[in-house]
Amino acid sequence: MGSNFNIHFFGTSSAVPTKERGLSCLTITYENSMAFFDCGEGSQRSVLGAGLGFNKDCNIFITHLHGDHVIGLLGILQTMAMNRREKQVGVFGPEGIIDFIRTNQSILRFGLTFDVMAREVKPGLVYDEENSRYRVFAQKSKHSALSFAYVFEEKEKPGRFHPEKALKLGIPEGPLWSKIQHGESVKSPKTGKVVDPKQIMEKPRKGKRIGISGDTRPTSLLEQFFKGCDVLIFDSTYSDEHQENALENLHSTSREAAMLAKKARAKNLILTHFSARYRRVSNLVRQAREVFPNTIAAKDFLVYDVADTS
Amino acid sequence: MGSNFNIHFFGTSSAVPTKERGLSCLTITYENSMAFFDCGEGSQRSVLGAGLGFNKDCNIFITHLHGDHVIGLLGILQTMAMNRREKQVGVFGPEGIIDFIRTNQSILRFGLTFDVMAREVKPGLVYDEENSRYRVFAQKSKHSALSFAYVFEEKEKPGRFHPEKALKLGIPEGPLWSKIQHGESVKSPKTGKVVDPKQIMEKPRKGKRIGISGDTRPTSLLEQFFKGCDVLIFDSTYSDEHQENALENLHSTSREAAMLAKKARAKNLILTHFSARYRRVSNLVRQAREVFPNTIAAKDFLVYDVADTS
Repeated sequence: MGSNFNIHFFGTSSAVPTKERGLSCLTITYENSMAFFDCGEGSQRSVLGAGLGFNKDCNIFITHLHGDHVIGLLGILQTMAMNRREKQVGVFGPEGIIDFIRTNQSILRFGLTFDVMAREVKPGLVYDEENSRYRVFAQKSKHSALSFAYVFEEKEKPGRFHPEKALKLGIPEGPLWSKIQHGESVKSPKTGKVVDPKQIMEKPRKGKRIGISGDTRPTSLLEQFFKGCDVLIFDSTYSDEHQENALENLHSTSREAAMLAKKARAKNLILTHFSARYRRVSNLVRQAREVFPNTIAAKDFLVYDVADTS
Repeated sequence: MGSNFNIHFFGTSSAVPTKERGLSCLTITYENSMAFFDCGEGSQRSVLGAGLGFNKDCNIFITHLHGDHVIGLLGILQTMAMNRREKQVGVFGPEGIIDFIRTNQSILRFGLTFDVMAREVKPGLVYDEENSRYRVFAQKSKHSALSFAYVFEEKEKPGRFHPEKALKLGIPEGPLWSKIQHGESVKSPKTGKVVDPKQIMEKPRKGKRIGISGDTRPTSLLEQFFKGCDVLIFDSTYSDEHQENALENLHSTSREAAMLAKKARAKNLILTHFSARYRRVSNLVRQAREVFPNTIAAKDFLVYDVADTS
């Protein structure tokens, strides 16, 4: 992998699992944190199978309360408690998410060793903390249940530091470099002149943005929401041949996903949530690439390096 | 396999899944029926993976309402509905099982295409229908939640039919054989004498009995309940070294399982529900065999032929 910013796909099947594909779940790992987007049945075992573990800082975002997207949440919380986790876990989802957790906790009588901060989301900023390196936004999607799409946004990163420029301006390696890297002006011990960080560092770099559609029809609201995403992960339940099913069941075809990615000027498209009728999805990828060439298909246990994305 | 009477082990891990073992689930397939005993998270995918499918006559028995034994029930019901099942499914479990199903159906808004006959069980006969080939009994077990052990009992089978005896008594192959096989006396066309089925058929054969302990301490009540079982599947969470954990968490060691099997005069013992701390369980099997030699360890996807059991 090499990078500390990856998308791990754990479940890429729609509605029912297949031998090859589990129910909806993906995790974005970023430095020491992990953010889940949906937790279908079987998620905890896939995460264990990938060797990820459950000890990181963790937030869980649920797109909608259909069983195949949320049932695995219970097992993840229980297993964290078995591991005697103490760090709080944030859970975000549509209205009903709190009821789902609390009611099952009560019926199944499972105690937790940590706090669950469960929040019902509304469109807009849903997660941001001072010491977190990312924030998450939500927007309404269009499915047969109240449902949300999310954008995971890496916070702005400091610009590249040029050691050769620092040395040229008479600033030696050491504490002064650190000050500059934190945005402070310093006095050059050699020239006596005040040096502005801008003379040595490039402009702050925009963070990467990852869009996650959940189950949805393509809509202009989502097109706006996903504008300029570096990576867009979009509902791709059907191929062209089953366009009617996409309309009827409020999902998208791979071609529709590609059309939205194109309009939103996303940089990369990852198709997921495939109907169990397709054993192989090369046809869906081909149809999408006719519209948007930078398209790949997700598969279970695929690790996508976000830091490498251009 | 060869037989039409098998036990399929789908999950043999305690509390949390491991790479090798899923959460508690086993299925007894008997002719065209299947009976589940517990449905931990991931059960539906294991059943699909084994190529079993969900179209058979089906009853589901839950030992207790801990998440690792029951969460997979929701996915099984939903997937049956996706497959447009119409045949009723029986669900049996401790108090709370009906609430668990109904509440989650309401929160997750999933409709079913078939009736679920959910019943809260008490000790005694919990399942028997005229046209079913088996019945199921329940008895209280001893765990940290209200919990039941079950016995799956094959109904009595007609005795062996001896064609050579029929021919000797002058009864030709055809409708008269069928009458005899159904227990009717017939008149021999050759001798004119009335022939009793007992002259041609052996005595009815006792059905096989399979005991399933669920999570429990060994108790004298269970010893009685499992008396003479052909196959006993028993909680074997720990090895001798962790006897204290067995007491504290209300589970059994493999040796305790073996002691109970011996006292109950079971014919065969299958250990299951292993703590995730044991990657291999040969030690647990060895300790049990010191007490009860006819012991094996369950593992995920093991198919045990009951018809072959002696």
